[in-house]
Amino acid sequence: MPRAVVLLSGGLDSATVLALARARGFRCYALSVHYGQRHGAELDAARKIAAVLGAAEHRVMSIDLAGIGGSALTDRSIALPTAPTAGIPVTYVPARNTILLSLALAWAEVVAAQDIFIGVNAVDYSGYPDCRPEFIAAFEKLAALATKAGIGGRRLEIHAPLVRMSKGEIIRTGAEFGLDYALTVSCYQADAQGLACGACDSCRIRKEGFAAAGITDPTRYRTNP
Amino acid sequence: MPRAVVLLSGGLDSATVLALARARGFRCYALSVHYGQRHGAELDAARKIAAVLGAAEHRVMSIDLAGIGGSALTDRSIALPTAPTAGIPVTYVPARNTILLSLALAWAEVVAAQDIFIGVNAVDYSGYPDCRPEFIAAFEKLAALATKAGIGGRRLEIHAPLVRMSKGEIIRTGAEFGLDYALTVSCYQADAQGLACGACDSCRIRKEGFAAAGITDPTRYRTNP
Repeated sequence: MPRAVVLLSGGLDSATVLALARARGFRCYALSVHYGQRHGAELDAARKIAAVLGAAEHRVMSIDLAGIGGSALTDRSIALPTAPTAGIPVTYVPARNTILLSLALAWAEVVAAQDIFIGVNAVDYSGYPDCRPEFIAAFEKLAALATKAGIGGRRLEIHAPLVRMSKGEIIRTGAEFGLDYALTVSCYQADAQGLACGACDSCRIRKEGFAAAGITDPTRYRTNP
Repeated sequence: MPRAVVLLSGGLDSATVLALARARGFRCYALSVHYGQRHGAELDAARKIAAVLGAAEHRVMSIDLAGIGGSALTDRSIALPTAPTAGIPVTYVPARNTILLSLALAWAEVVAAQDIFIGVNAVDYSGYPDCRPEFIAAFEKLAALATKAGIGGRRLEIHAPLVRMSKGEIIRTGAEFGLDYALTVSCYQADAQGLACGACDSCRIRKEGFAAAGITDPTRYRTNP
């Protein structure tokens, strides 16, 4: 079985990607990164998802991006948005996907995986620069130059299978694989039990996704939204 | 004064780069990353160097690459080399410079710096894939696509001023700026006081550099080598 490193946040998108990578026949090494984000409940979700979806291994790495700040996700003095915003949202974390992919690349090299999966999506979060296909393509070029494996002539592929899907399409894809979305946490301010607020921008996009997919929303909310 | 993020390990090369960036008129934000490397004494050296060379700020970020392993620098079960090796040395840390540059990129975005300096060198350590000019060029392209600043049309430049210098040339450059190399630690197995072993590959390259530069080696060794 070919090996793949799969970035797994514990949210809806990355869980779908893990299900998809498994369905494509990869032995999956799931990597979660705790970067000081508000929603630590996501990591508990990631552990459950990795187990349920049969990841060969699941690692959690920590890095203190809160010390750098610059995002509503890592700096509590910046308010979370509750409505769509023009331009790049304040939830943008500087260079986050570059950092996540570089850590995945390191682990891929150690476990001899030639494939990395990431659940970026350019449709619903189109404001994030590091969720676009051109960013993924540039990282793939970098990976070939950056690593021992790459200069040894081994192909290294960055898969972003959700990049052009709508949230509804993502949810339908995961549902086809039997993914239980109740395991996933999307809320920017989920509580310790992983219960969602139902009000933040991420909850809103998720809710609209289930509606568009025509699938009952299994999200566990703190109160009925 | 334009701002720059300067990666500062505490070794000879990165200290030279910081001196050089200061001399070019940058307000310098020095970033050290503790990634589980054996030579923690380097970080103490980095603190002193940042202070002496007048960095505007110095941050130390931690990330547990030892948990990933795959290198003699992060895994104590892999022996350190004491002689030149063919191909890529066991001291290669998977994706290290990709990770370091991505963290520097995040901080650069937060402090609104358009310039990042890194002390990679393709001559003495030619076995490391992520020390080559083509790697730096690929990261610069990625940075333009990865960030809010980049897609806003702001130039982001990755400077690797030592990339084509010999160790002797690097040392002469730093010496011209009055850099006190006794502050720097290169040894792969320096002790807690920063005293060098005099035997590892890194000590050997450093010694040869001072000899080539015609400058007295101020390195503090544990015993006379």
